[in-house]
Amino acid sequence: MAAPKQERAVQTREQLLRAAAEVFDEYGYAGAGINKILQRAGVTAGALYFHFKNKQDLALEVMHAQRNTIEPHVPSTGLQRLVDITLIWSHSLQADPMLRAGVRLTAEQASFGLRDASPYAVWARSFEECLEAAREAGELRDHVQLGAMAEFVVGACTGMQEYAQVVSGRTDLPRRTVNMWKLLLPGIATDRTLDTIENSQERAKSLWTTLGAHDKGDQHV
Amino acid sequence: MAAPKQERAVQTREQLLRAAAEVFDEYGYAGAGINKILQRAGVTAGALYFHFKNKQDLALEVMHAQRNTIEPHVPSTGLQRLVDITLIWSHSLQADPMLRAGVRLTAEQASFGLRDASPYAVWARSFEECLEAAREAGELRDHVQLGAMAEFVVGACTGMQEYAQVVSGRTDLPRRTVNMWKLLLPGIATDRTLDTIENSQERAKSLWTTLGAHDKGDQHV
Repeated sequence: MAAPKQERAVQTREQLLRAAAEVFDEYGYAGAGINKILQRAGVTAGALYFHFKNKQDLALEVMHAQRNTIEPHVPSTGLQRLVDITLIWSHSLQADPMLRAGVRLTAEQASFGLRDASPYAVWARSFEECLEAAREAGELRDHVQLGAMAEFVVGACTGMQEYAQVVSGRTDLPRRTVNMWKLLLPGIATDRTLDTIENSQERAKSLWTTLGAHDKGDQHV
Repeated sequence: MAAPKQERAVQTREQLLRAAAEVFDEYGYAGAGINKILQRAGVTAGALYFHFKNKQDLALEVMHAQRNTIEPHVPSTGLQRLVDITLIWSHSLQADPMLRAGVRLTAEQASFGLRDASPYAVWARSFEECLEAAREAGELRDHVQLGAMAEFVVGACTGMQEYAQVVSGRTDLPRRTVNMWKLLLPGIATDRTLDTIENSQERAKSLWTTLGAHDKGDQHV
């Protein structure tokens, strides 16, 4: 059982990460002053430097917190699971500053001297696991290379959300995600699987409402 | 016939844009100091402020210079033309700081107070024209919606090059581009067209070598 002091430390660290995510999301790395983050978190500079070395360290933690949002509690398997994860993501990116900040920092990382592929790699590995199950279940056409396809979907989602951010503040991201699968599925799924895969904005909304709640909670940190 | 003074002005403007592109490409918007740009261009601050209002104005011009690299002198038409444009782009992005800076600034634009969708829209319009010709020629399956597909390819290319930048400094971008089409084509092209489309790293290299030279020149400005 954690002592009160440790509990407070955990809580402070979490407040700092959430505040940093909000500030990085709004202002980007360069515009996110340490003072803004301290104000938002309501903690002292001493507390910040107890938990994090510097702003870059804080940014890295926020980038890596994305991985905790990857595995939604989705009951589906194989190709449907991969589709579902991206459908939920298209909503959670609108609702979750931690996820948004992670995505923004990953895209901007060159500006603050990082070249860290691990946020991409973690997503790609998660997608590849879905594709492995899909292949096992005979859902994929023979030509599909699992690793290459997983990396393509990660890259496509990355760019799609940037485009959606500029055009609509990401409100049209669910439509764009459904559209991606409408274009991809006929070429990669077997005919039998194609008939059964559900891919619609209604499904995205419904999955997000019933399951996304797990990802809105405090389990990022 | 341009007077020498006007010629010098055009030349100075071009030097400034090229220098700005190189510095934006290397350091991003926040890290690109006006002094760095002046030094690189070898011109005075007075000359810079004669041609551009401020750093943001300079960044906007670099973002919009992308459009001059979009239409390579490719003899192919329809779907093959769309494939070819992306194959050439996968090489030109490695060679051309103006294109790279435009892409980087478009991704980072929120950091400097912009929300300009036109660089995406110009690419999407160019891709949609290829798809219109493809539909006209009966190359596309009925389910493909031209505008939505054009926007998807723009988004996918955007994210793919960011992923490639972090993983390989973009050297593996031609492979990733070929892979994108391997995944997309079987779902969007008619069987007859699928048999004839050429999509390989060899084609990318050969198109770039023979045609990309047009895009390495001085016609950006």
